[in-house]
Amino acid sequence: MANVITIEDPADPRLADFRDLSTADRRPDRPGGRGLVIAEGVVVVERLLASPYPVRALLGVARRIEALADRLAPLDVPAYVATAEVMAEVVGFHLNRGVLASADRAVLPSATELAASSRRLAVLEGVGDHENLGSLFRNAAALGLDGLLLGPGCSDPLYRRSVRVSMGHVLRVPFATLDEWPGGLNMLRDKGFTIAALTPRASAVPLAEAGLGEGGAALLLGSEGPGLTEEAIEAADVVVRIPMSGQVDSLNVATAAAIAFYELGVGRNHDTSRKTDPTADAAR
Amino acid sequence: MANVITIEDPADPRLADFRDLSTADRRPDRPGGRGLVIAEGVVVVERLLASPYPVRALLGVARRIEALADRLAPLDVPAYVATAEVMAEVVGFHLNRGVLASADRAVLPSATELAASSRRLAVLEGVGDHENLGSLFRNAAALGLDGLLLGPGCSDPLYRRSVRVSMGHVLRVPFATLDEWPGGLNMLRDKGFTIAALTPRASAVPLAEAGLGEGGAALLLGSEGPGLTEEAIEAADVVVRIPMSGQVDSLNVATAAAIAFYELGVGRNHDTSRKTDPTADAAR
Repeated sequence: MANVITIEDPADPRLADFRDLSTADRRPDRPGGRGLVIAEGVVVVERLLASPYPVRALLGVARRIEALADRLAPLDVPAYVATAEVMAEVVGFHLNRGVLASADRAVLPSATELAASSRRLAVLEGVGDHENLGSLFRNAAALGLDGLLLGPGCSDPLYRRSVRVSMGHVLRVPFATLDEWPGGLNMLRDKGFTIAALTPRASAVPLAEAGLGEGGAALLLGSEGPGLTEEAIEAADVVVRIPMSGQVDSLNVATAAAIAFYELGVGRNHDTSRKTDPTADAAR
Repeated sequence: MANVITIEDPADPRLADFRDLSTADRRPDRPGGRGLVIAEGVVVVERLLASPYPVRALLGVARRIEALADRLAPLDVPAYVATAEVMAEVVGFHLNRGVLASADRAVLPSATELAASSRRLAVLEGVGDHENLGSLFRNAAALGLDGLLLGPGCSDPLYRRSVRVSMGHVLRVPFATLDEWPGGLNMLRDKGFTIAALTPRASAVPLAEAGLGEGGAALLLGSEGPGLTEEAIEAADVVVRIPMSGQVDSLNVATAAAIAFYELGVGRNHDTSRKTDPTADAAR
């Protein structure tokens, strides 16, 4: 493992990536103006090391850096070792997870490129909450979505809190922005996707009856409060809902999405009694 | 609407229920030693007012108390009106939601009573995280579970944070404690429940193939880290899993539960093509 460097002075300029971490997302000094990608904790740092994002540096207590030795062996990046006290002084708060890594942003695929290599996508509109966004990526990863498209009003998935809540899956699940809205959805339709808008409306089709697992599907998801805009709903091929018990208005958006991902992704397609498209698994 | 009382002095002893709210859960002075039930915000307060919990008092800014006027009309409880500043001084922090209500605890049903009136139950083991517990109740309410049974190691669902995260559904969805563990599960089996343990193990049966929607079902759920104990898994009739994409270990427990609730509850039973028990809906 190359470049393990012990640091004793919290003011050491080599730690600039990790300084005042709670405001690091607002730094204006990166391409795109949105700060570095920061991973926290062994599991998320491992996902960063396995990702396409160019790793810049690590900072951790000795025990955590050692735990990552195998993953660090092939990398030519500095791994700074410090005490928990020095780390706390650098980042500005006590860090339970004991290890951090920084990376530069990578070039995102275009929406068209992502669609070309995907069969199951989520398309988000107005998902501004960083925790919900992180949970959506975690759930997409677990349930076999191929990627996420970010429509208007979505937050930055590489914001530190989203990275953490996603358990690092924002670094693994491809995403792209869909700039033209809702016109950009036509591109998906042209590529053979059925566009399904998820809403709590009683007039919508129950999710299980929409046959979404059977072909390319793009699931439109809105924010937790207002939901999808009318224009997004009108642009969809089918409007679907999760049947709910009488008095309850709605689930958290990431939870509702998980149910829909289950229905259209790997969850239900393992139920061979329902599989109507024998090529579905082969295409994955 | 009875008993609207304007309060100007934050030290007014009539506001004792709401004082230092961040530590109120640890008050030793209530039956069970676990504090009052506190509801925050109009939606949750409305759910408290509609619940079996005996309401003691409300405290809110004028606008919020007015918004609840219809619900308060039939109640003989004090509704204290104060400014946001006075409220902040009483509760110890600034309260965005602008209205609170307090209630006494109610006698819980026994596990046997709850089972007798239920067809679909979740049984929790070691769910100590208050947010996960609150989310589990919210998801259970939305997806038509009849109740929750709390095995060993679970937190108090009436803790303030759980009440809030559940959106007040801990006050609506019945729950009981299952004291004998895992022996108490035999009672459920005797009442005709199929006991299904949810784990991420590859050897488990995919959820969709277990036929859980077709009869009485009790779903065993463990905590997010360690999951269910071996003894709980061995006590189950069937061990089920949510099929997941290759590299991902697991979902958040409340999210995994939501998918399972969907599969066995009202979500999938709206799919008439799969309904094999024509009495299922009639029994609800």
